[in-house]
Amino acid sequence: MAQEDSIAKLQAQIQVFSEEREWDQFHTPKNLILAATSEMGELAEVLQWKSDEEVVAFLQTDQGRAKLSEEIADVAIYLIRLCQKTEINFLEVIQHKLNVNEKKYPIDTSKGNARKYDET
Amino acid sequence: MAQEDSIAKLQAQIQVFSEEREWDQFHTPKNLILAATSEMGELAEVLQWKSDEEVVAFLQTDQGRAKLSEEIADVAIYLIRLCQKTEINFLEVIQHKLNVNEKKYPIDTSKGNARKYDET
Amino acid sequence: MAQEDSIAKLQAQIQVFSEEREWDQFHTPKNLILAATSEMGELAEVLQWKSDEEVVAFLQTDQGRAKLSEEIADVAIYLIRLCQKTEINFLEVIQHKLNVNEKKYPIDTSKGNARKYDET
Amino acid sequence: MAQEDSIAKLQAQIQVFSEEREWDQFHTPKNLILAATSEMGELAEVLQWKSDEEVVAFLQTDQGRAKLSEEIADVAIYLIRLCQKTEINFLEVIQHKLNVNEKKYPIDTSKGNARKYDET
Repeated sequence: MAQEDSIAKLQAQIQVFSEEREWDQFHTPKNLILAATSEMGELAEVLQWKSDEEVVAFLQTDQGRAKLSEEIADVAIYLIRLCQKTEINFLEVIQHKLNVNEKKYPIDTSKGNARKYDET
Repeated sequence: MAQEDSIAKLQAQIQVFSEEREWDQFHTPKNLILAATSEMGELAEVLQWKSDEEVVAFLQTDQGRAKLSEEIADVAIYLIRLCQKTEINFLEVIQHKLNVNEKKYPIDTSKGNARKYDET
Repeated sequence: MAQEDSIAKLQAQIQVFSEEREWDQFHTPKNLILAATSEMGELAEVLQWKSDEEVVAFLQTDQGRAKLSEEIADVAIYLIRLCQKTEINFLEVIQHKLNVNEKKYPIDTSKGNARKYDET
Repeated sequence: MAQEDSIAKLQAQIQVFSEEREWDQFHTPKNLILAATSEMGELAEVLQWKSDEEVVAFLQTDQGRAKLSEEIADVAIYLIRLCQKTEINFLEVIQHKLNVNEKKYPIDTSKGNARKYDET
């Protein structure tokens, strides 16, 4: 199966879903970014008061994993929908950016250093 | 090719990339959510002052499409990395949430109405 | 009344509120940024599907104004709390940044142009 | 000095600043929320890779405090501008929400517990 088909399949489902409910009209790029932002907020909320140790314990529970999974999915769905509405290939642009990052962050200058490449 | 392989391939590249630079240590779930948030901010910034008409014109330029694509990719990469570090299957949880949404938003009550199902 | 007192008064109330509930322990800078992010998500959600005209109509209703007000307040409370926990003076840093912006965006080069000063 | 004047003074400066540059036209509520989101992203970025201990050390440096202060200010400026454009009283709505929170989170049920009041 071609690489794009896994995302294309999800997009086909999202398209039908949106059309059936006459929601396509609301899916402008700016609105989709606001919606992705609202879901990013819900993702942040899942872990906002937990220490790193509590996060580990939380993610060992079914409820915890389900909650985090749901919020990741919600953000991803809007990004995938944004790509669909703007005819951007989701998997291709990610692959492209990963390749760009390889060059932008040479191993020898990046090792163990979390600073962005252009930060003093 | 199995459905997971397209994302799994990207995750393999992200894993090597992170290990080569000794960045894996920074990739806790909370840190990855903060990083995804910072990239969501850059995505919002691309269109923040443009009217919907200006957005259309902008996305017809190579520079505009490249900029939007890059920021979508940056958010997606951190979500995919978060899934990898927490052993959540990115494509599966999206598929699951799309199925949940079908039930949560029945067509007859949702048609043309952008309100969330539990909003008055 | 000195300029800081209006914010200082709110901070005093937030401090008592947090101590009474033994929530002070959770208010690390990173956690407060995640919490502010979650509230920013709720703010985005209020208007995410509305056109600019619908936003105007919405904000003419008591319910609409109350909803937007609540979410603005929620983000602001976490920023003010973050300042309190890091001993940053909320009003002073805003005043300082406004002064910096005056220099960063000279009127003649900025007029009617929404681009950031260092964007091509 | 009346309580609102400290924020009103900042708003007066923001109004002049925006008019001088003919930027007022861009400051619709949705655009201002996108802009606040982009600044929230920059705020998240300041601490995203730091452990809680590294955050403490970072905030003891002048550079660290200045960076965090700047990003807090940037988010706050857009919230204050949003209030100005929608005729919402920034300080009043915060005071109101703090009062609401006192009732929403009774001390006895909230003590030491970071869960939201309606969470299981």
